[in-house]
Amino acid sequence: MPQHVVILGGGFGGLYAARALGGKDDVEVTVIDRRNFHLFQPLLYQVATGELSPSDVAFPLRATLSRFRNMRVILGEAIDIDVERRRLTLSDGVLEPYDKLVVSTGARNHYFGNDSWEEYAPGLKSLEEATRIRHRILFAFEAAEREKDAAERSAWLTFIVVGGGPTGVELAGALGEIANDTLRGDFRHIDPAEARILLLDNSDRLLGTYPADLSQEAEKSLIRLGVRTMLGVRVTDVDETGVRIESGHRGSEHLHSHTVLWAAGVTGSTFGKALATRAGVPLERGNRIKVDEHCNIPGNSDIFVIGDLAQQSGPDGKPLPGVAPVAMQQGRYVASRILGKSQGPFHYFNKGSLAVIGRNEAVAWFGKVHLNGPIAWLSWLFIHLMYLVGFQNRIVVFLRWAFNYLTFNRGARLITGDPAPYVANRTAHKFSEHVNS
Amino acid sequence: MPQHVVILGGGFGGLYAARALGGKDDVEVTVIDRRNFHLFQPLLYQVATGELSPSDVAFPLRATLSRFRNMRVILGEAIDIDVERRRLTLSDGVLEPYDKLVVSTGARNHYFGNDSWEEYAPGLKSLEEATRIRHRILFAFEAAEREKDAAERSAWLTFIVVGGGPTGVELAGALGEIANDTLRGDFRHIDPAEARILLLDNSDRLLGTYPADLSQEAEKSLIRLGVRTMLGVRVTDVDETGVRIESGHRGSEHLHSHTVLWAAGVTGSTFGKALATRAGVPLERGNRIKVDEHCNIPGNSDIFVIGDLAQQSGPDGKPLPGVAPVAMQQGRYVASRILGKSQGPFHYFNKGSLAVIGRNEAVAWFGKVHLNGPIAWLSWLFIHLMYLVGFQNRIVVFLRWAFNYLTFNRGARLITGDPAPYVANRTAHKFSEHVNS
Repeated sequence: MPQHVVILGGGFGGLYAARALGGKDDVEVTVIDRRNFHLFQPLLYQVATGELSPSDVAFPLRATLSRFRNMRVILGEAIDIDVERRRLTLSDGVLEPYDKLVVSTGARNHYFGNDSWEEYAPGLKSLEEATRIRHRILFAFEAAEREKDAAERSAWLTFIVVGGGPTGVELAGALGEIANDTLRGDFRHIDPAEARILLLDNSDRLLGTYPADLSQEAEKSLIRLGVRTMLGVRVTDVDETGVRIESGHRGSEHLHSHTVLWAAGVTGSTFGKALATRAGVPLERGNRIKVDEHCNIPGNSDIFVIGDLAQQSGPDGKPLPGVAPVAMQQGRYVASRILGKSQGPFHYFNKGSLAVIGRNEAVAWFGKVHLNGPIAWLSWLFIHLMYLVGFQNRIVVFLRWAFNYLTFNRGARLITGDPAPYVANRTAHKFSEHVNS
Repeated sequence: MPQHVVILGGGFGGLYAARALGGKDDVEVTVIDRRNFHLFQPLLYQVATGELSPSDVAFPLRATLSRFRNMRVILGEAIDIDVERRRLTLSDGVLEPYDKLVVSTGARNHYFGNDSWEEYAPGLKSLEEATRIRHRILFAFEAAEREKDAAERSAWLTFIVVGGGPTGVELAGALGEIANDTLRGDFRHIDPAEARILLLDNSDRLLGTYPADLSQEAEKSLIRLGVRTMLGVRVTDVDETGVRIESGHRGSEHLHSHTVLWAAGVTGSTFGKALATRAGVPLERGNRIKVDEHCNIPGNSDIFVIGDLAQQSGPDGKPLPGVAPVAMQQGRYVASRILGKSQGPFHYFNKGSLAVIGRNEAVAWFGKVHLNGPIAWLSWLFIHLMYLVGFQNRIVVFLRWAFNYLTFNRGARLITGDPAPYVANRTAHKFSEHVNS
């Protein structure tokens, strides 16, 4: 009688666990995700900045998993768990009992208790958020083109990115390229290169998890792209007029902007809370669940938590970072444990970290080797193409990049979705009555 | 002093008019569109059926028009016109006077007075509608996979396309391929090939504007793909349970389905009504505006109407069809008239008509030459790639097609947007309590 393995979430952790269990005789696998696709999150910021299309960075889960006869995929959302009876409650039914459960439900944006900020400062965790951000960025230039009032125009041309980690750095860099290259010559009343792009972080340097020399290189590259970094500032309020910040030496200040993007932090998924409560384990910082060296929750060797939801200590005692390679390796590890092949503890093999800033600009950290500039950028390109799921995606992404690189263009800069987003509604009346008359 | 030319709408008519006026000394051009992109509508059904991505069939208007220094693009919507004072009212302001006005605002879906049907039977005129239809189609298979009740499962696996013109034929053919090829092996509890695809039309043959032999070829191809055509039937009601039809010989019948797509007709854009009222000209059938042989509205040589909104008689006295080549040629014609280069009347040069049904299956009508099968299909492929705007789009679309052709796959089959569409909300409770237990 094969074991029933349930995998919650089709992100990097869940997908790599599922693939490693695919076609094995002694397990039957159920993969549950709210979406019908795997999302390649490291490239999501490129969807938000019009370089790639949603389908370039997403791949249907069924297409990759259905070839395994021991696997089924369910489009559904887990909302609760009965640990005793080994049953998951989905939003529309109860699943049959699992023998092993792999929880890989990831993280969501975190506004440090100020959930009202979300409306004004969208984060970047889903495809919908990415297209919403793209909409906001492109619409801001359109609105600036038509705005007569100088202060308002300047607010439309001010872009604030909160958070100086890899996502914030990548977003700010891409904004710099949009303003300086992509939109050059597209408008008659504004010069997109006049856009102010502000990257805020409350620590004293960007890319806090990287070595200090790479932080400095990243900052230099951003400044070349016209991005202004503001370090050591704390965001105290976000609303439709912009961001209020506080810094030690400057005190409180208001930054007037209609486009604020959030890259300041994530918190464990909602299901993590349910699991912690039902299994009687504590939630750590950022609503993550502490797991042991086998990726199990305390006292239960049948429940694994991996990826961004898990908090696991590395060999140096510090928690492993919330990056894709950790989730992938944990996924493969728990699969081999479930199959009884792996006895030892999980070891994270750190292949290095990369953050891209723009055209030919990136920083790479491979242990003692620190790279920046074109070589780092090429490594980034190569590695991301290599890991991109789906043969077709890989070719199309490569071509789009090649094309965008050669032409300074971005093919996917469409404003779709609600034709009147909240910003448009709120500010439409502010356009002067005579358009360019 | 250059003339001020205002072009309303960036579809085929407006775009081709704008390009022909680009860089000319004696005109200044304002192009107004509600969206920031030109949409290649002939391939929209491929977005709806997961073959292409939105950005493959859309191209930013600014990217193609901004290189002309005499041209500006405004993201806005015209809602009224003052013909005397030559001023357009946008939803957020009034434009300075035009010397010449080109109205190319196209058509929208038409439900023959039953606007409530729109919720249940989306049409295919915009990118948002295309992704909504894709969502509906893919979600139906997911819902069927989890449905225990046989009648409900059969309703999820029944797809109804209303309207047997080119769009309806293309949608039904693509549905046949999705069910038979793309999703093969993806599910555990249903066989997608069991899906019923019904193509309804109230006339006695498909593709009514084509020669009868091609209608028959198209029908044969559809039947090979598993599509059932129901001709001579009239739709009398559409709601969440499906479609009620009436036919001469069978009387009234109810078709149980949760996925109904509308391809039965279009009507002139809303702005057309305002123009007709203000200019004192009558609205013809389908809310179109009759124009003379110079594409002018009666009695006003400064206002041109082109594309799907215009009703113009061809040499045989019949109205010109609402297809892209007519709009393109009218666009170029009015540009040359505005520049004083063209004195004679507009002549439509009919290069032929093509409708694709599926893999290697299409019908082509080039005057006396009637083609079907692979040759027609290759012509369709070649012509659509040739006219596709944007070098990058062309390469990416070609690659996607090549890949999909070779693998029977569809890369863009993502269910995005609202995670709980109206169908999911309404029917979630119908899933039996134990999922596959």
